[in-house]
Amino acid sequence: MKIGIHKIAMAAPDDVTGLQRLLSSGEIAADKIVALIGKTEGNGGANDFTRGYATLAFKLLLSSQLGVTLDEIARRVAFVWSGGTEGVLSPHATVFTRSDGQGGGTEPRLTLGIAETRVLAPEEVGTMTHVRETASAVARARLQAGISNSRDVHYVQVKGPLLTPAAIADADARSVNVVTRDPNGSKVFARGAMGLGVALALGEVNEADLGDGVIGRRLDLYSSVASTSCGGELKTCEVLLFGNAPGADSDFRIGHGVLKDVIDAEGVRLALASAGLDLTAGPPAPGEIAAVFAKAEASPTGRVRGWRNTMLSDADINYERHARAALGAVIASVTGDPAIFVSGGTEHQCAPGEAPIAAIVRCRT
Amino acid sequence: MKIGIHKIAMAAPDDVTGLQRLLSSGEIAADKIVALIGKTEGNGGANDFTRGYATLAFKLLLSSQLGVTLDEIARRVAFVWSGGTEGVLSPHATVFTRSDGQGGGTEPRLTLGIAETRVLAPEEVGTMTHVRETASAVARARLQAGISNSRDVHYVQVKGPLLTPAAIADADARSVNVVTRDPNGSKVFARGAMGLGVALALGEVNEADLGDGVIGRRLDLYSSVASTSCGGELKTCEVLLFGNAPGADSDFRIGHGVLKDVIDAEGVRLALASAGLDLTAGPPAPGEIAAVFAKAEASPTGRVRGWRNTMLSDADINYERHARAALGAVIASVTGDPAIFVSGGTEHQCAPGEAPIAAIVRCRT
Amino acid sequence: MKIGIHKIAMAAPDDVTGLQRLLSSGEIAADKIVALIGKTEGNGGANDFTRGYATLAFKLLLSSQLGVTLDEIARRVAFVWSGGTEGVLSPHATVFTRSDGQGGGTEPRLTLGIAETRVLAPEEVGTMTHVRETASAVARARLQAGISNSRDVHYVQVKGPLLTPAAIADADARSVNVVTRDPNGSKVFARGAMGLGVALALGEVNEADLGDGVIGRRLDLYSSVASTSCGGELKTCEVLLFGNAPGADSDFRIGHGVLKDVIDAEGVRLALASAGLDLTAGPPAPGEIAAVFAKAEASPTGRVRGWRNTMLSDADINYERHARAALGAVIASVTGDPAIFVSGGTEHQCAPGEAPIAAIVRCRT
Amino acid sequence: MKIGIHKIAMAAPDDVTGLQRLLSSGEIAADKIVALIGKTEGNGGANDFTRGYATLAFKLLLSSQLGVTLDEIARRVAFVWSGGTEGVLSPHATVFTRSDGQGGGTEPRLTLGIAETRVLAPEEVGTMTHVRETASAVARARLQAGISNSRDVHYVQVKGPLLTPAAIADADARSVNVVTRDPNGSKVFARGAMGLGVALALGEVNEADLGDGVIGRRLDLYSSVASTSCGGELKTCEVLLFGNAPGADSDFRIGHGVLKDVIDAEGVRLALASAGLDLTAGPPAPGEIAAVFAKAEASPTGRVRGWRNTMLSDADINYERHARAALGAVIASVTGDPAIFVSGGTEHQCAPGEAPIAAIVRCRT
Repeated sequence: MKIGIHKIAMAAPDDVTGLQRLLSSGEIAADKIVALIGKTEGNGGANDFTRGYATLAFKLLLSSQLGVTLDEIARRVAFVWSGGTEGVLSPHATVFTRSDGQGGGTEPRLTLGIAETRVLAPEEVGTMTHVRETASAVARARLQAGISNSRDVHYVQVKGPLLTPAAIADADARSVNVVTRDPNGSKVFARGAMGLGVALALGEVNEADLGDGVIGRRLDLYSSVASTSCGGELKTCEVLLFGNAPGADSDFRIGHGVLKDVIDAEGVRLALASAGLDLTAGPPAPGEIAAVFAKAEASPTGRVRGWRNTMLSDADINYERHARAALGAVIASVTGDPAIFVSGGTEHQCAPGEAPIAAIVRCRT
Repeated sequence: MKIGIHKIAMAAPDDVTGLQRLLSSGEIAADKIVALIGKTEGNGGANDFTRGYATLAFKLLLSSQLGVTLDEIARRVAFVWSGGTEGVLSPHATVFTRSDGQGGGTEPRLTLGIAETRVLAPEEVGTMTHVRETASAVARARLQAGISNSRDVHYVQVKGPLLTPAAIADADARSVNVVTRDPNGSKVFARGAMGLGVALALGEVNEADLGDGVIGRRLDLYSSVASTSCGGELKTCEVLLFGNAPGADSDFRIGHGVLKDVIDAEGVRLALASAGLDLTAGPPAPGEIAAVFAKAEASPTGRVRGWRNTMLSDADINYERHARAALGAVIASVTGDPAIFVSGGTEHQCAPGEAPIAAIVRCRT
Repeated sequence: MKIGIHKIAMAAPDDVTGLQRLLSSGEIAADKIVALIGKTEGNGGANDFTRGYATLAFKLLLSSQLGVTLDEIARRVAFVWSGGTEGVLSPHATVFTRSDGQGGGTEPRLTLGIAETRVLAPEEVGTMTHVRETASAVARARLQAGISNSRDVHYVQVKGPLLTPAAIADADARSVNVVTRDPNGSKVFARGAMGLGVALALGEVNEADLGDGVIGRRLDLYSSVASTSCGGELKTCEVLLFGNAPGADSDFRIGHGVLKDVIDAEGVRLALASAGLDLTAGPPAPGEIAAVFAKAEASPTGRVRGWRNTMLSDADINYERHARAALGAVIASVTGDPAIFVSGGTEHQCAPGEAPIAAIVRCRT
Repeated sequence: MKIGIHKIAMAAPDDVTGLQRLLSSGEIAADKIVALIGKTEGNGGANDFTRGYATLAFKLLLSSQLGVTLDEIARRVAFVWSGGTEGVLSPHATVFTRSDGQGGGTEPRLTLGIAETRVLAPEEVGTMTHVRETASAVARARLQAGISNSRDVHYVQVKGPLLTPAAIADADARSVNVVTRDPNGSKVFARGAMGLGVALALGEVNEADLGDGVIGRRLDLYSSVASTSCGGELKTCEVLLFGNAPGADSDFRIGHGVLKDVIDAEGVRLALASAGLDLTAGPPAPGEIAAVFAKAEASPTGRVRGWRNTMLSDADINYERHARAALGAVIASVTGDPAIFVSGGTEHQCAPGEAPIAAIVRCRT
């Protein structure tokens, strides 16, 4: 398996010209595209429609290129958008292609598996059903990626549904319960369930410790490589599992680390080192860092390095926006590149207050 | 002259307990306090009242401690607050004391001069009158600080009035013009006039190049050590001029640098080095960095390191808040300390897109 | 008992000049002031400090006028501020004086009782203790107001503590539980407990139906005359109970109504009619409407008059701000006066989706 | 000419199911649709992408129904979206169809003309070129509508481009000037130019009084029937001109009025009366009010009915959002219908502080 990676700038959520150019020039073959992961310039909240807009725009482009329906594109390509380009974060998409390759060497190289759950009903969002469906999809994605040792899994991106007002109304109409009636508040449970799903699939938690009541609450149960997000436009959970495997002949290697807080520049450097890039030997070559994925979170103690933090009490700007602005700037100050995937909400993704970071680096050899 | 520096945390804009403890313990003598510079957790805009609230609270404390009126405290102590603790920035105050000292050595050490302009009328805000009154106050402050070479001036903080709706109404009632009718928009002209005032006083610009029409417009005219802010609660401009002078016997030294953009971590390190702290030799000792003052700005090109930036087109969050969140996090990632003075708006303070940063460091010897 | 009412404009949260003028002219005697109820131009959220700032400013004025300490003013005068002047709502304070009067007639006239609970610990906020302490204070206030029939109680304003980050930290330090760890989210429980406290005191609910678990949840339990708010600056609950009583010789009468939704202009007219003002006979005379107090709420069904409403899914602007903007404009369109007390959050105050409104009208005779 | 009107609810910017149902049931023929005017749930600012998203979604539906390209739909149908559903405003679209009709009577009935300018370059936005191109399109639209007397023109909706960061960059690349470098600030000039264009076309201003310098400045020059908006997704100006003409056989009549401020409920009633609906005779029948279009504006004096207004000094919420929330609620309180087209910004549309309102009412006979 050979994974290709291209990062394109976006002038607006529906700006597909970057991909258009890569397709026109032949740098990318449309039928090899398996995933797009990107940031859009919305507010990142329940009423952020820039994600759906970007998905529609890219689906239209690929549908016209490949001569297939929009639905067929949705089946072929996983779209993962995080809304909110606070601070220096820049709207962009990272396009992943997958082809058979010609057989790699023994050195583990980047590999990618993709899977999707069934449609989840509103009453299942944020429950153990959400956990289990996620876990099952993660297992399928890992199998597809050809990763036998779970330590070689470095990043599992899961994106799934939250509770929109429409979803809550639907549940009401059928007289079934939902985990919360607050659309923005439902993100905690949705992201949490998917984080636990990854942890369950990779053996990071015991199934006996899980239950509806622990989701979003028992935060000592977590995955160290999960990154989960949710959006009102989704009905299923999409899983993208990245790792390294011998035999893959990608030009890239992935690594991961744990950020102790949103100003942990050293944690950023360690994640890059885990992927094989040593910054103490000098700055990265242009394009050497292919992608960085990280999660940003408000400090659960209300303190950062001992000083009081006001993210959680700010009624004007959601704490996720503060956290993304801070971490995005810190990562960019290390890598020199503001086109980073930083998304909010770390429920059951690393220990409370910590956050996952993964980096994909082009191999020098 | 001996300058003392104490940084205190604040649990709210009116939380003076940190200073109260320092006064009770005798660490600080109330009558030696000459300035407080801090961050409050408001929005940093024209309707941010946390600055006035903090000033009133500290004036009440000092008035009661010293047995003098609130007005007398206002004459004795310069209060400089910047609203907006985005990202990791933490509400705090840095308390500056000044005493005669016992005569320092030949090595230049931290010194501080303070001066104030007369009350500015609404129609003078953002005009050449604003520039000249500021320049005159800067000259007085420098004299007081005992700095003969303008290269030894490293940081000039100026805070003055903007155009509140009330100020505009007052001008209207007297049928005089104001530079703009937009309260938030007036900050550009007010900060710009004060930046040019510093530049004029320190010989960084020629008076012949100045005029009402260049304020906020000819941004190639600037000071490299000015940091100006404005607030609706102010009528005069307060100038705090920091530098190093032989004969001062402070325990501190100040330096400055220029940030190329809001993720310029190397610029932060260079400013610290200019103050005598070499981070390549290891992390700073606790308390070694006494204070960092910096300005944050949206990129005037709309790009950061080549990637599109969305600060200026965000209608939900003001670009200054984005910029402070980003830069505050980057500085804290270098120093490990989120209690930093980062304020917004760099009109005529460094070249367009660049921003000043100053650091006060405790001398190791 | 004779209640006097004066409404003053405020140019900023600390603008006390309106009251100063009334004191200087002798229109109000400082020692007769018992309450100030007003709106300040903050965001109305957990980090809205304009309320505390206004309180401090007015306490300073009255302290200097009466020659007593700030603490003594706090004991004498109840301050009730609601932050957030969205739409047309105008920052203002309504000053209530109370004097013995000379004995009124048999026609019921405005009367006012004030009481305060003890300090509530963080772990008591939003619990049955909060309910019971409120109920007990309401009973004392009613006794003071001299109202024997609970139907003559038209408006009970209660303001009390919420859970600030500091309060939560305090609870953590003592290893006790709080009802929620989300400062903004704690408002639901705090306001709800106080609403149930009023309902309990006035016999609108049975004590047997109450318990910690119903607060903020069993919304079919409610008071029709309660208006509760909370703020981070408060430690106790202050109760202001307004009604009509024979023997009072105020120039005013109070009435109340129920708003079916935030565009219920007819509900506004009915509340005015309940206070004796018939708008079908022509517009009110200037000053005839002395004060209007109302609560604004997002529709719990997500619909207003059958059309979808987006307040609850907006991640940029809190739903309370949307609701206050809408209701404030509708009330002002009926009365012609934007200086109205409209505050957010109706937990246990009227049936879900409905909201209380009270009006004080100057008697024509 | 016969104009048909259908109002559909939208559950999201891309929710076209309401129109789908009307097409499936045969209530509307897709090829008769000439315009959609609606509100989307964005922030209404320069980074509001909900308008473009809605346009794309409806174009896709109609393209698939009619078997023509997306570009052909764009040529056939005018899409006018205003972002921002503050307060009670509800996301919706009003669909206008136009057919030949069978010849109406002598009583003037609703008629509609549509025209479009050429593509405007960034350097033309907000200039006299923008004014003249708009005026020329208005004249063409009026001819198409068959309105001989300009008094029978009641509503002219114009939507055109603003200066996006991309547009400014494009101008920079070609070394040409733009009227402002602030994307949000460009709306003043863009809306103003289009307002003056309508006034010029209808003889409400003299061409001799116009010039680049008056746009957004000489606000005593205005149209009383213009409603102009702008969005980053537009390159041309689209004009929709509504009026009454004898011979039209629509079931509707249009009227207009002027709102003195955002709480002018009487102005709403007068606009309805101008369209033939007398609310003093009882509430409207369901569906009797087919559409209401209004503009909302912050008071230029900073006062509403003598009381200070804080819209313009609020750094958290744009004043347009405050104004729309207030006016939308007031109109809905009169009509009982929150699906209203209320958009912000009245530069050169009615006298300063005033705003246009138009209503389309189903004729009872």
